[in-house]
Parts: sequence; C-alpha cells; structure tokens
Amino acid sequence: MVKVGIIGSTGYAGAELVRILLNHPDAEIVWYGSRSYIEKPYAEVYGNFFELVEDRCLDDNLDLLAEKADVIFTATPQGFCAGKVSEGLLQKAKVVDLSADFRIKDAARYEEWYGIHHPTPEFLPEAVYGLPELNREAVKGARLIANPGCYPTCSILSLYPLVNAGLIDPERIVIDAKSGTTGAGRGAKIPNLYCEVNETIKAYGVAVHRHTPEIEDQLSIAAGRPLLVQFTPHLVPMNRGILVTAYADLAPGATAEKIRAAYEAAYEKEPFVRVLPEGRVAETRYVRGSNYADVGFCVDGRTGRVIVMGAIDNIGKGAAGQAVQNMNLLFGLPETEGLLTVPMSV
Amino acid sequence: MVKVGIIGSTGYAGAELVRILLNHPDAEIVWYGSRSYIEKPYAEVYGNFFELVEDRCLDDNLDLLAEKADVIFTATPQGFCAGKVSEGLLQKAKVVDLSADFRIKDAARYEEWYGIHHPTPEFLPEAVYGLPELNREAVKGARLIANPGCYPTCSILSLYPLVNAGLIDPERIVIDAKSGTTGAGRGAKIPNLYCEVNETIKAYGVAVHRHTPEIEDQLSIAAGRPLLVQFTPHLVPMNRGILVTAYADLAPGATAEKIRAAYEAAYEKEPFVRVLPEGRVAETRYVRGSNYADVGFCVDGRTGRVIVMGAIDNIGKGAAGQAVQNMNLLFGLPETEGLLTVPMSV
Amino acid sequence: MVKVGIIGSTGYAGAELVRILLNHPDAEIVWYGSRSYIEKPYAEVYGNFFELVEDRCLDDNLDLLAEKADVIFTATPQGFCAGKVSEGLLQKAKVVDLSADFRIKDAARYEEWYGIHHPTPEFLPEAVYGLPELNREAVKGARLIANPGCYPTCSILSLYPLVNAGLIDPERIVIDAKSGTTGAGRGAKIPNLYCEVNETIKAYGVAVHRHTPEIEDQLSIAAGRPLLVQFTPHLVPMNRGILVTAYADLAPGATAEKIRAAYEAAYEKEPFVRVLPEGRVAETRYVRGSNYADVGFCVDGRTGRVIVMGAIDNIGKGAAGQAVQNMNLLFGLPETEGLLTVPMSV
Amino acid sequence: MVKVGIIGSTGYAGAELVRILLNHPDAEIVWYGSRSYIEKPYAEVYGNFFELVEDRCLDDNLDLLAEKADVIFTATPQGFCAGKVSEGLLQKAKVVDLSADFRIKDAARYEEWYGIHHPTPEFLPEAVYGLPELNREAVKGARLIANPGCYPTCSILSLYPLVNAGLIDPERIVIDAKSGTTGAGRGAKIPNLYCEVNETIKAYGVAVHRHTPEIEDQLSIAAGRPLLVQFTPHLVPMNRGILVTAYADLAPGATAEKIRAAYEAAYEKEPFVRVLPEGRVAETRYVRGSNYADVGFCVDGRTGRVIVMGAIDNIGKGAAGQAVQNMNLLFGLPETEGLLTVPMSV
Repeated sequence: MVKVGIIGSTGYAGAELVRILLNHPDAEIVWYGSRSYIEKPYAEVYGNFFELVEDRCLDDNLDLLAEKADVIFTATPQGFCAGKVSEGLLQKAKVVDLSADFRIKDAARYEEWYGIHHPTPEFLPEAVYGLPELNREAVKGARLIANPGCYPTCSILSLYPLVNAGLIDPERIVIDAKSGTTGAGRGAKIPNLYCEVNETIKAYGVAVHRHTPEIEDQLSIAAGRPLLVQFTPHLVPMNRGILVTAYADLAPGATAEKIRAAYEAAYEKEPFVRVLPEGRVAETRYVRGSNYADVGFCVDGRTGRVIVMGAIDNIGKGAAGQAVQNMNLLFGLPETEGLLTVPMSV
Repeated sequence: MVKVGIIGSTGYAGAELVRILLNHPDAEIVWYGSRSYIEKPYAEVYGNFFELVEDRCLDDNLDLLAEKADVIFTATPQGFCAGKVSEGLLQKAKVVDLSADFRIKDAARYEEWYGIHHPTPEFLPEAVYGLPELNREAVKGARLIANPGCYPTCSILSLYPLVNAGLIDPERIVIDAKSGTTGAGRGAKIPNLYCEVNETIKAYGVAVHRHTPEIEDQLSIAAGRPLLVQFTPHLVPMNRGILVTAYADLAPGATAEKIRAAYEAAYEKEPFVRVLPEGRVAETRYVRGSNYADVGFCVDGRTGRVIVMGAIDNIGKGAAGQAVQNMNLLFGLPETEGLLTVPMSV
Repeated sequence: MVKVGIIGSTGYAGAELVRILLNHPDAEIVWYGSRSYIEKPYAEVYGNFFELVEDRCLDDNLDLLAEKADVIFTATPQGFCAGKVSEGLLQKAKVVDLSADFRIKDAARYEEWYGIHHPTPEFLPEAVYGLPELNREAVKGARLIANPGCYPTCSILSLYPLVNAGLIDPERIVIDAKSGTTGAGRGAKIPNLYCEVNETIKAYGVAVHRHTPEIEDQLSIAAGRPLLVQFTPHLVPMNRGILVTAYADLAPGATAEKIRAAYEAAYEKEPFVRVLPEGRVAETRYVRGSNYADVGFCVDGRTGRVIVMGAIDNIGKGAAGQAVQNMNLLFGLPETEGLLTVPMSV
Repeated sequence: MVKVGIIGSTGYAGAELVRILLNHPDAEIVWYGSRSYIEKPYAEVYGNFFELVEDRCLDDNLDLLAEKADVIFTATPQGFCAGKVSEGLLQKAKVVDLSADFRIKDAARYEEWYGIHHPTPEFLPEAVYGLPELNREAVKGARLIANPGCYPTCSILSLYPLVNAGLIDPERIVIDAKSGTTGAGRGAKIPNLYCEVNETIKAYGVAVHRHTPEIEDQLSIAAGRPLLVQFTPHLVPMNRGILVTAYADLAPGATAEKIRAAYEAAYEKEPFVRVLPEGRVAETRYVRGSNYADVGFCVDGRTGRVIVMGAIDNIGKGAAGQAVQNMNLLFGLPETEGLLTVPMSV
C-alpha cells in the first residue's frame, strides 16, 4: 500500500487526485494538505467526498509529511515545490510535482517565462519529465517527477510522433488549444466567475503563455533540434477538457498513410492513447473523467497541411491521472491501476 | 434629458442600468460610480461598452453626485443607501435604491432579517416600494424609491392578483424560486466560480432568505392581513432569469376561469406583464434581456391547488429595468421609454 | 460472471449501464441492443467507448437474447417491456425494466396516466418495485424488477422516512423537482436542442407528469393510506442530476431531532443514501456519476414546515446505477459491486 | 416604411431578424414565412414574441410575397433562393439571401464545395457580396444581396486589412474558428441536442467546410491574387458568438504599428467594427446580441507571426444584423438604423 500525501489537495487537480486514489487498490491518502482550509474536514470543502473521506485538511509541512508518506504530490502554484525540495526530502519520499518547477531543464528559461526565481536548480538534472509515453523507463527510477502541464500533455502527445518521424515541418507548427475552466484553477477571481466565463470564448496568454517553452522543449527533443511553436490557449465554458487543434506543413513525401503509421507505431502499445480512425475527430467529452488521450488527424491535400486534433481531460491525463500513472511506475505497480475509469460522455 | 448617476455601476445590475440607459432617448449617465475601479475606464471593466462609453469610474460621493444628477441609482450592498440618504440629498436628487434598505417598512424587521442596523429609519415612511404595477401613482410623486428585489418582483407579480381576489388560501403559499447566477453578484467568491455553479443545482438560504419578509409584506397588503410564505431560492447554471413556481391551495369557489379573470383584470393594461394562455408555461429565456414578466398558471383539480409560474430577467425587471421604469415615472416620461427591448430567446 | 443484455443501449440510461458494467468485475455485456443503430459499432455511437467496446449494435430480439443472457435490462420507451415479457422469457432470464411498465400495480391507473394499454397486467403482481432501500429482500428473489423512475427514486428516498414515521402531514406534500437534460432522453426533438435548453429553466408536465402516481403509490405504502402529492418537474440546463425540494407540514410533535432520527434509522446502514448534516444542502454535482443519493432537510419553525432536499444522478441512482444495484441483489453479488465510483464534483 | 418578408423566419437567423426588425423604426414585417409551421402563430414558436407578434406563419410563396414586400430575406437552406430567384421577382422586390447561393461567383466552385447544382448562375454576376465594409456602394444599388456567411464575416473583417496592405504572407493563413451552437441551426438532429453539445468541444468540417471558398474569394480580392486558407471551425457550448483566431506570417517590414495603422485606416469610420487596443483580446460576449465586430491582434516577435482575433455574434453581424444593415443601405436608410443595440455581456 503506497502512502500518499497531497499538498494542495483542495484545488481542482488535488481533488481529482483524491477522487482517483480513493478507487486505487494500492494507495492510501495519509495527508490532505491545504493551507487555506487547515483543520476543516476535507468533505466540507468538496461535498462529493461526504462519508468517503473523514480526514481534516492539514498544512503543507513537507518534512513531517515525508516521514509518513511514500510519495508526495505537490498540486501547488509555481515555486512552491522548488522552494521545498531537498536531498533530505527526496531520501524520504518520492515527489511528483504537478507544478512547472522541474519541467524546464534550463533554469534561466524557466525564470524568463515564469517570472520567478528558481531556488533549487540543482535538482533539475535529476528531475524526470513525467510523460510516460516518452519517458517510461526514466520515470521508474526517479525520485523527482516533473508532472507535465495540461496543454503540453495534449500538445506533445498529438504532435510528437509526427515530429519524431520527420513527417511535418517542425518549424511551422501552430497549436490552437481550448481548455475547460478547471484549468483556470479554484482561485476566487472575477475572471473565473460563472457569469464571466459562461456563454463566451476568448484567447488568453497569446504569444506569452508559460506552457509554450515546455511544449517546445519536448518537441525539440523529438525533432533533434530546437524549434519554436505558436501556442494560443482559449478558455471554454465547460468544466473539463482540453482540445488541441494543431496545424503543420507536411514534410516532402509525407502522406496520410505514413502519418497513421507513425501514430500507430508510437501508440499501439500505449494503454491511454487512442488513435482515432479516419473521419473521426477528437472531442473532449469522450475522455472526460478519464486518463485517456484521443488523437486524430486530417491531411488537407489542398493546402499541404495536416491538422492534428487531440483531446484529454485537463485534470485527468493533464494533471491528476498522469500523476497517478507516474506513481504506479515509481512503485512498480501496474501502470493502469486505478486509472481504467471509463470516460463519462454526458 | 434626465441626468443619471449610478453608484455601483460595475456590478451586474449596475452594468444592466448602463446597457439600458445608453439606448434611452431621454437619459444621460453623468456618473459611473464604482469604488473598486476608481479612475479605470468603464469600458475596460465591461468590454461590451468599448467605444460606447468613454467615461472613467468615479467614487461614491453622493453629495457631489447630487449636484450633477437628477436621479441617483444605488446598486450597492445593503446598508449603503441607508447610510447616505439625507434630507439634503433628497432635496437635490431623487434616489432609486436597488438595495433592500427601504423595502421593509418596519426597521426592526429589516434588522432582524438582514442582521444590520438601519441608520435612517426616518426615511422609511416616505420611501415608495417601486413596483409600478402596484404603486404607480405613489411612485410618480416620490423622492425615494425602494426598488423591489428580484425574487419579490417575480413572486409578487405572480401571486398578487390571486391573493388580492381571495382566490387562494393566503396562509399556505409555497414559493420555489430558481435564479440565474448574476443574482449572486460579481463578488470574487469561490461559490460563484464557473466550475462551482456549472452543471449543478442547489437551494440556498432555506427558511432564512432575506427576500422572504419583502414578499410577505406585499402579499399581506394584498390579503389585508399578515401572512407568511415559504420561500426557497435555488441557484441555476445560467446567467440571467428567475423562475418562480408557486403552490397555493384554491379558496372555496375558485376556478381556473376566475383565476384567469383576476390576472387579466390586474394586468391587461400593464405594458410589461404578460399573462400566458392556458397550456403555456413561463420560461426565463422568453424574457431575457427585457423588462417583461411572464405569468401563467395551472389549476390542479386533483389536488385542489393552483400552480403559478412566473418568469423575469432578474437583472431586468428584477433590478435595472424596473429601476428605469421607476425613473420614467418619476420624471414624467413615458413609462416604457427605453424598455421595449424585445427579449432574446437564444 | 453475469451475462447481461441491454435493450435500448444507445439511450442515455443505456449508455450509463454500459459505462458502469464495463467496470463491474462480475458482469459481462453480451448484447448491445439498439433498434436505431443495428450493425453499427457501439463505440461509433458513443466515442468514449472507443477501444473499450468492440461490439456492434443488435436488434431487440428478446427471445434470442434470453438464450444468451442471465439478465436483460430494458432501457426502452413505455410499453416495450410489457409487450415482450412472457412466462417463457422470465424462465430463461431475469428482467430489469427501466421503463414504467411494471412500477404501478394497478393497470388502470397506469393506463390513465400513461395513456397506453397495458398488454400484460398478469405480471404486475410478481413484479418487484426495485428500490432496494425499501424492498431489498423482495428484489433478491424476483424475476421481474420494475426499476424506479428517476424523479420517484429521489422523491421517495427524500420523503419515505418522514411519512413512515408520521412526522409530516402526508396529505400536503409538495415536490418541486429539477432535472438535468439527460432526463429528456436522446430523441431528436427541437425542445431538446442545445439552444432551446441552455440558459433557461421551465416547468413541464405540471399537474400531469407520469411519475406522480409512482411517487404516490410508494408514499401511500409508507403512510398506510392513500395520499396525493403535488409534483412539478423542471428542466435545468445541465446534463445530469435531479434535485428534489419537497415541502411538508410538520405533524404535531415533530421536531428536527425526531426527523434526523427517522432519517438515520432508515439509512444508517444504507450504502448509497447519505444523510447530510445540519446546515448542508443537497447539490446534484456531489452525486454526479455515482449511485449515491444525498438527503438533507431544514425545519422552518416559523412556518411549521420541513423542507426536504434530495439529490441523485438521474441516470445513476435514478436509472442505470439502481438497475445494477438490483442486478447485484438478483444474483447474490455484493450490493455495491461496481457502484462505488466516487462522485465527480466538477 | 420598408415592407419586409422573411422566408425561414423560424430558424435562429430568422428569429433574430424578427427581433431586430421589431425595434426598427422604418421597417415592418409583412410575411413570417415558415414551411414547417404554416398557420401556427409565430409567437407560439418563439415565446419571447408573445404579445409582440400577432401574425401566423405563412408558406414560402415568393411570388405572392413579392407583391407585398419591398425586400425579401431568405434565411433558408442552400439552394432555396437560387431555385426561386427570377428576373420577375427581382423587378418586384429586393432579395437579401442569407444562404450561400450567391456568395461565390464561380458556379462550378459553388457546386464543388456545396455538392448541389446551381440552377440560376445567370444572377451570380449581379449579386453583390453584402459585406458593407467592403462593398458599401455596390450594395446600395443592388437588387440581389448575397449576405455573407457567419465565419466569413468574422474571418474577412479580421484579416482583410492586413492582406490588403500586404502586411502578412497571404499564402499561409490559418484560421481557427469557434462558434456557438445557433450556428448549427434549429434542425432536430441528435448532434445538436443539449447533452451532445454541452461540456465538450470539437472541430468539424475539417479541411472541407463550405465557408472556406467564400473566405478565400474575398481575401483573394484583397491580395490581388488567388490564395488558399486553412479554415477549421469548432462547435462551442454556448448559444451565440464566433471567435476567429487567425495566424499569419508577417510580411517583411511589417510591424505592430503598421498593422494597427492598417486596421485603423480600414475601420476608423466603420460604425460596427471596433479595433481593440493593445493588450485586449476579442471575446464573443462583448458583441452578443449586437451588430458589432471586435478585432484585435498580437504580434509575436519571437515567431514572426501576427495572431489576429475577431469576434462577432454569429446570428447578429454574422447573419441577421448584417442583413438589416444591407437593407438599410438598399433603401437609403441610415446604415445603423435599428442596429445600435448595446451588446449584452452577461
């Protein structure tokens, strides 16, 4: 039984971790950390857990937590995990960080995009970018996992095989992404109010969104050389889900058949990536509440482009689901354990 | 040209006042008060007014405002208007208070339900409860209008004719009301976040909601004796609209025909109350963005009850629209001026 | 391993059955019946099942199905199951009927409310009303289960203990119910279109809704004498969930303490009914996707009433979840098997 | 007083025409055509018009209608208007066709993308593409107006000034568009049901959407040479609104200042196009219910692209509003008459 501590358990990703782990046969939550709700019964914050969770919220004392837990999930704002991690901590417990602190290997690049100082760059080399489809083996032996961002998870899973196989021009990728509002977090801010989000759509973070370098870093690895992507996220009036619509120029000789073959080669053994058949487009509702990522594409012979569409649940495969998938790998459990929930289409 | 000052212009009711008044041929807004956004261009708070409103937000200095405006709308929290109103103020400008401060004639009753001290009960006697369908003539000569609450507007318009005509048992009225989320205001609070309101419904303020005494006071006038109502509001995942479903026992001799006659007698000359034909139920979308109130009913012979259903736009007829209707009456303008917007069903 | 056939598997309740049963360790779906989609791969109708269900849709041949299945779920329009059931069928397979055909013991009453002829009233006596909280033992030995309606499930669970304990006046119950739009079914009708349901709320079936006699029958059993209820359903812009707000006059001597004691006596051992603590109201999101029913109440000393609030997922405990709960009882499986999914609050 | 006939008055664009024209001081609707609802009171189809419209629906007899009306709006499926238009008809009444029949000058190209035969290509030369910002003078003298599509209106207004000024590479434009669900029409189809659209987002018509050639034709005129665009629409869970996010490579020498100057030169005198200041993004709610188009942009120096964002109400400026704007021009009325409704942000 893996003992789990969650820091930031009352945010949306934290609550999804709880939801998943309650049905996980080999994990037990020993610490519901939430600085805002210390001493409050967790089920009073989220009524769905009424009679299912009896614990009260605790603070974010990682040292104490590390004595009790085998793994710590930090579902916290940027900077928190980097400010707390230490050799002593990592010797006591594994850390799966759901923030961006250890996703970008170059601390200067992190500081430039995030606008905050990185206090512990010495752990960047050992941190493993926890996208199991790319780094499964490395994850297994890690102590510190940088759990990928929601947009990067969806963007990278959608594009990696094509970049890697040289089927698209890696210099010209445009990623237009759409996210449900859990992605904006549970902060009490006017732009997140129901009436400000409902019945409208807008872009945000245009040209400056902080998930951009993370996507670029991973696709650069696939391309074998540095590349830039154009990434634009949008806020959609729905709770969950990310849809990525990516546009890329076909490389010379690329065909729909070769593209399909590249996806199948990449994902045929992957338990959580579903390559959609021709004519089917990804929809966020078809992965809702699950750890699946659906990827489809359409080659436009007229324009010489491929349009790639990927969908995930932003707090599932895009956050908590993936974190549990990483936990399973870290502790030698079956990778899909606790994660085979069927998506809830309505 | 009536010069209008709005205190609380950046709340949802305030913004609806602006939206309505910009299309009003005889009114001009001279003061966009908003304590939270002083000096900020109003159109930066609400992008829909871009290029339509050039003004910046001002503070809530009512004395200064009273020098410039003919009428002041206070779309502010409870207690604000009562704390500012004075003989000097009312001699300079009319006041239409969208809060509850002057709706309940008995200060002790106000204090009991609202839990705050009423600092200026001396103005309660002269304040007119601004439901034009009941108090049109009194409104015309008033200096201080207590603009009705959203739930009371819908509840009273739905039930008043039947109570007044003695067609229902006034002791046994149950009002189950459902409101869109603009009714919760624009405060940055977690329960108002998109993901907390979307895809769910709940009751709130059960047995203690502060609109209860307001409804009771007006229906008691209709009944000619004090009565109690059971009032339960619910929060619905939509921006605008209130639906009231009210249950009442038929009085002896009451029939569907007599009920219809009572409604028609009450409302046949009313420009904003639409009595629905048999078989048609009120829907909030059919009054959206307008000043209309739709009222229908169904007599259930089996149970001996009448079910009354009323719909308004909570920030239209339930707040800003009604305030403008009162303004029109106060200044001798046609009552419907600026208010004949056709409802927007989708 | 229980072999399951589903007739009407492409409706919303049918799809929820599939979603639940795919995670059920002791059940296997052998027949995806859907008259509208015969031969079409099931996962093309509901993309969430892509790679999880390989089967194609079949017709509604119950005789053939009965050879293959241990239990048949009929998630079909009223009249279908009653038209197909026979002694021969019931000797081969158990039937859990999600329609209303066998819920009302009096065929004439059924025909009056539903407006259709009942072709097989001879099976009404043996059919068991499948609300396990009331009829657990009878369910275990049954061949034909009348799976309760969604509104009745929520209404009865909310009110039964109080009626049964004599704590409320059983003659004066008003039930104001609100349902998500899956309750309207998957028929291609204009009133169910997105733009007709979104951003609005309305009542429907006022005084004539067909779930009324079902609620009355069960509460009459609790009261020990016939009673009438006033039942009004509303359509809410959300996918899932039913909220019941019920109003009842307190019986002489009834107190909040006695009411709480009655609920606790009724439900303390029930795995799926959660009695909410004082001050907490039921919300549909807290039971979404689950088989739980949340019940809370508020005594209003001022009016002498109790307001009872209950919430279920209309296609969970209100349809498919309850059907699987009944299946578990029918086959001697643990009652909660496959049903302990944690509700998904966002 | 312009006499107006509407064919297809019960679709969403038709109903928006009615809503706008009821508040138009110089227009009167004389014909509510609707093949599906002949003889039915119009206000029974759309309850918002209760007591505002007394007329019943009529058939689609254009010859008879042309005797009574000065202008005919055809808010009908593709092929209808082309099948009915004739010299005789145009001599009696002006026609504003909201379908695509006369938008594409090349009949073969129309037939290729729409998959239907064009029966009256002889009227293609005289038909004027009714985007007043481009063709104001031509509209004034026309008999037959091809009212632009919703996506093309938003896409063209967003991009035309930059293509025209040579500030972007016209060969490489990617348009990622998002639409509310009124855009899918009022047909009773399963994919348009509430529960199929709510809480999800998907692309559709990828690489083959029929608005593509219309956008290309108009931008080709701006570029002075044929160009292709990559156009991908998405369905968003909201009623109204289109957001276009367009990606283009900057031409050599292009700067943010030049781009702003191009927009201002194009639109400074336009009453309905609002060029957003730096740092502000277009949001559909800020144009809801109005005839405004909001256009903003962001230059990404890092990637050498400009991201252009435009928002309209798809059934306002994208259909009915623009049709009325064209009507005003056709009849020498002030262009903005009846169209200065303030957008409704919530």
